[in-house]
Parts: sequence; C-alpha cells; structure tokens
Amino acid sequence: MSIDPWGSEIIEDYERIFVDFGVKRIPEYIRTGLKHISFERGIVIGHRDFEKVYQRIVSGRPFINMTGIATSGELHFGHKMIIDIFKFLKDCGGRNYFAICDIDAYVSRPDSRIPSLEVAKKYAVENLSHALALGLDEKDVYVQSRKERRYYEFAFELSKKITESTFRAIYGHLDIGKVAANLLQYADILHPQLPEYEGKMPSVTVIAAEQDPHIRAVRDIAARLPYDFELPSALIIVHLPGLKAGRKMSKSEPETCIFLRDPPEVAAKKIMNAFTGGQPTVEEQRKLGGKPEICRVYEFLKFNHPDSAMLRKMYEDCVSGRILCGECKLLTAEFVKQFLERHREKLKDAVELAERIVYG
Amino acid sequence: MSIDPWGSEIIEDYERIFVDFGVKRIPEYIRTGLKHISFERGIVIGHRDFEKVYQRIVSGRPFINMTGIATSGELHFGHKMIIDIFKFLKDCGGRNYFAICDIDAYVSRPDSRIPSLEVAKKYAVENLSHALALGLDEKDVYVQSRKERRYYEFAFELSKKITESTFRAIYGHLDIGKVAANLLQYADILHPQLPEYEGKMPSVTVIAAEQDPHIRAVRDIAARLPYDFELPSALIIVHLPGLKAGRKMSKSEPETCIFLRDPPEVAAKKIMNAFTGGQPTVEEQRKLGGKPEICRVYEFLKFNHPDSAMLRKMYEDCVSGRILCGECKLLTAEFVKQFLERHREKLKDAVELAERIVYG
Repeated sequence: MSIDPWGSEIIEDYERIFVDFGVKRIPEYIRTGLKHISFERGIVIGHRDFEKVYQRIVSGRPFINMTGIATSGELHFGHKMIIDIFKFLKDCGGRNYFAICDIDAYVSRPDSRIPSLEVAKKYAVENLSHALALGLDEKDVYVQSRKERRYYEFAFELSKKITESTFRAIYGHLDIGKVAANLLQYADILHPQLPEYEGKMPSVTVIAAEQDPHIRAVRDIAARLPYDFELPSALIIVHLPGLKAGRKMSKSEPETCIFLRDPPEVAAKKIMNAFTGGQPTVEEQRKLGGKPEICRVYEFLKFNHPDSAMLRKMYEDCVSGRILCGECKLLTAEFVKQFLERHREKLKDAVELAERIVYG
Repeated sequence: MSIDPWGSEIIEDYERIFVDFGVKRIPEYIRTGLKHISFERGIVIGHRDFEKVYQRIVSGRPFINMTGIATSGELHFGHKMIIDIFKFLKDCGGRNYFAICDIDAYVSRPDSRIPSLEVAKKYAVENLSHALALGLDEKDVYVQSRKERRYYEFAFELSKKITESTFRAIYGHLDIGKVAANLLQYADILHPQLPEYEGKMPSVTVIAAEQDPHIRAVRDIAARLPYDFELPSALIIVHLPGLKAGRKMSKSEPETCIFLRDPPEVAAKKIMNAFTGGQPTVEEQRKLGGKPEICRVYEFLKFNHPDSAMLRKMYEDCVSGRILCGECKLLTAEFVKQFLERHREKLKDAVELAERIVYG
C-alpha cells in the first residue's frame, strides 16, 4: 500500500519535463525549508535556478516575486494556487509584481474566446477582484494595459534580441500575435530588474509546466540584452485536475471546475458529482479501500485544504476503507461552501477596487 | 532635346513600383492641384489611395497627416523633403502626427549602428531639433518612446491580425525584431483613427518607395481590425540622390550627403565636389550642353530650391551650354550656405525644446 498521501497519477504525467526539458526537481532541503502546502504536497513539482532565490529567502535578503495570470475567462480554483504561492513568497520577503495580463489574453487567444481588448479587460476586473479578495494587495498588482510607458518601451526593446531560430527552436511555431504576446510576458518577467525598478536581483515566477518554454526563452533573452540581469528563476506547479475523470480544470467545461464566483451551493453540487477513486460497491470499498491517487475530490482538498494532518488522516481512512466516497464528498462540499461564503464577503469591496485599477 | 526640367535618370529607376506593386502615378489634376514643388517637380512619384485625401483637401474637410522618421543617425537633406511635404499637408488642413521613431530605430537597426535605446534617443533629439527648426510645431510631433499608453496597447492589439503568411508574402522574411518595429509603424499610421484620437478619417503618410511594403501591410491589417478605419493612403517620393555618381544620399558616406548640422562652408565644399552632368571640356560643354538629368547638383536644387522659374532657366542654360558646372556649383553652394546659416539660427532654441520633448 502507498504511504505517500501527496502522490497522484496526475503528477506522474509530468515526468517528461525533467527528462526532456531539464527542469530540476525540488531538492529536499527546499521542500522542507519552505513551509507551504505547495512544497509539502508536491504541487510545486520542479524549478529552474530557484536555489539562488531560496538563498535570498533564508538569508533575509530581497528577491523579485513576479507572477501573473492571463485574463481569458473567469477565475477558478485552478488559478488559486498561483495566487496562494505568490502570497507565500511575498511573506518570504519578495518585491511583488503580480501581473493581470489583459493585452496578452486578447492577443494570444482566438477571437472566438476574446473578441476584443474590452472583453479581456472585463475579465481583468473579474480576475483581479478575486485576487484581491484572496489577499493580494493593491500595491502588489499591475494591469498590463495600465502599466508605465517604460514597460512597453522595454517590451519592444527586448524584441531586438529574439531571433527567428531561437523562437522556432523553443516554440516550434511563429505566430506573430503570439510573438507580440510573448514580448509582454518577457517584459513582465524581466522589467522588475531594470534600473527604474528593483535593479539586478534574483527573481522567481510561478508557472504551469506548459509555460516552461517562456522561461527558457526569457532566460535566453535576458543574457543577450544590454543590461546586467540575473537570469530569472521559475517554480513549476502541477495543474489542479478537473472534477471529471480525464479532464483538466477547464473554463470551457464548467462541470470540471469550480469558479470563484460560483454560488456556494453550485460549487458544493459540483463536488458531489465529482469523479472519485471509490470502488463499485460499498462492500468492495470497505474491503479494498479507495484510491485517492486517482480521486478528484482528494486532489481538490490537496490543493486547497490548509490542514495537512486532517488530509493525512483522510487519506489513511480512504485507503483502509474506513471512509466512503459519500462522506468524504460531503465534508469537501461543506469545506468549499464555507470557503466561498467567506470569499463572497471579501469580494464586495474588491470589485470596486478592481474596476478602479483596471479602468483608472 | 528634353524639355522636361523635372525628369531624371534616377526617377526612371522607380518604374517597377508601378508595374510590380500596383502603386499608382499621381494624376495630372492632383499634380497641378497641389501647389508644392514635390508635386510640380515629380518628387512625389506615386500614391496609394490618395484621391480620397485630395477630395478632403479641396473640400476643406479634415484628414490625418501622419508621417515619421526613424532616428537612426543625423538628419540630412534626404530627410528634409519628408518634413517639407508634411508642413505643406498641414497647411492643407491636416490633423498632424509627425512621429520621431526612436524605438523603431533601435529595434530595427543593427547594434553596430544603434547599440542602445539611449543612442536612438540622442538621435531623436538631433532629428527633432532640425524638424522644429525647419518649421514643425511642438504640437504636431510625438516621440515613440514618450507616447501615451493607448498607443502601445494598440501596437500589441493589432499584432493579433497579422499572420505569418501575410508577413512573409509582403516582406519575404520574418525577423522578430523587425516584426516588433513594424507593429509600432502600423500603430503610428493607424492610431490617429482610434476613437481616442481623430476617429475614422482618411489619412496620408509620405514614404520612400522602399517603405511601400509597410503600407501594403498596414492596409491589410486595417481591414481586419475590430475598428471602423479608412484604409490609410500614402504618397511615395523619390530619394534625393547622393552627391556622388551611383550613390544614394547615405549617412554612412558623409561625402554623398549634406547634413543639416554641417557647417555652411563644409556643405558648400561638398557641393563644389559633387558629380555633375558636365562635359569633359569647356569647349564640349559650350557646344553640346550639360546633362541635368544625371547631375547631382541639379537634383539637389530640384529638391530644395523654392524658385521654379529660376530652376527652369538654369536647366535651359545648362542644356544649351550657356552655363558651366563651375558657375552652377557656385550658385548652389551659396544657396546651401545661406540656407544653413539661417537654419543654425533657428536651431538655437529648437535644441532645448527637442530635449524637453524627448526626455520629458
């Protein structure tokens, strides 16, 4: 019987980023040194050059904490971990740059999803209001379309150091809209090191594995630019899986994910309908135990429940057959419901503030 | 004997832009309707869709007058015609947008010429001070790196509507630095039609023939964007040829061109050393006459001397052998000297203003 409550089949899918792309595994001293569920539970699965940021953290010296989200739809729990880790790194002493990427979202998404910049800005208000309600501070965030002139200038400036061959080698394609969106992403990651901001300083950006090509590209560009930059570091996280088997948590399939604006009862219902690792019958479940490593309810708790001792017990009760899926779902549904009720309260003030930040 | 004082061998090189790329010749009613030496003397050699701007001019309705220069070196007389035509179109009732393209210059020129944005900005001050001394008004000009946020946002926004295939079809290459510079050029040409500026309105941009691909590209993009835009029009001018045979007026060969900051005596000397259409001996010149159609001194006068009657006489005196190259050069050298002496006076105040505009 597995004794690792943090393992899962989903995580096993990520093996190739280590083998094929040279992402490094999180070393044990960092995993245990940073007290956050994302490290403890293996949600932060790998990194590029993060050791130098870790050294800054343990020695109490500043570093750049730069992460962002593209405003291409409503925020769901799949995005929440990015915000949670950003907050954790802020508390570790980061200089904070959380980007609300509205121009990027418009330019890089098809018109069928984001037909105009105005639509991307509406999502910017929605996303930002949730981020603020989740605990981000106004002064930690910026909206791409409201950024200072120096940032845009720098995005064009760095374009000079990208060659077609580098781009093709990393991305395998050359879509000009995507190239332009990438310029902004590179500017997002690098601009905090400009003399006008923090100056040369280790930086860390939290990304999902599929965004790793951007990190490779931006590290290549950072070395070519006529500035003295630290090569930016990255933490790579696994995706919160969707609530249905074989599905990612995806905006386009609402039953697979819980939105932060979902009414608490709707969210609870989605949990009750989720795919679990339960056995076909109660008898088999009691005898053989469940399979948390494939259970989407357990994954949801792993990404979101703060109490690791409780989760370990839940895991053991599941694999030993002491708890059935129905009970577990009820507990989880109640947890989500209470979370969203508290979130709704915090959201009230956040929406107005978000509108002011996005529209000025 | 040729009776066209405005013809030249240089202009004949431009034939392919009509045949291969569909640029139209300036119709006679426009050539005679617009009272400026650039039309009268065939310096404006072609156009795209200019009739609708002309209709605006003759009916006294507004149009957008949008032209710019890349700040990739010191300004010389080869750039002066662009500024002269811009001023003329301003007087015709244009809404004026003269772009000092510093980011473009840095991004699109090799590091060996423009190693940093700071260098491009130094040239921006130099170029802008001459433009102001030549009669542009502070409120008619903008510097790319000092432009409003909406302009940058729009440059990224329009990137969504450029496909790799369009780009390759028009430019035949796909250099990412150049793509980024092009985004700014497209934004320069189109942004005056945004609702935040003039709104939908015919616009005209004065370009040299080799920039015509940008006009084709920007007209293609204008039609795809989610805005109601008039397709932008263009006037295409011939280059002022260099002072040496077989040479363009080029910054990298100082003896081929007269810089606006050249000391008047230096400029006069360059004229005295210029290539002419004279005969090998005085006897032959008196008997056969000179060839103004290949003479670089005559071309210089054609682009710069305001007095058409005087120029016609000079042409006739040359082809009939009444005037020798030495006399003609002396006259021209004196003209340049006086021009640059007056220009130096105007430049005094312009430099300080240009610095304020570029550096804020």
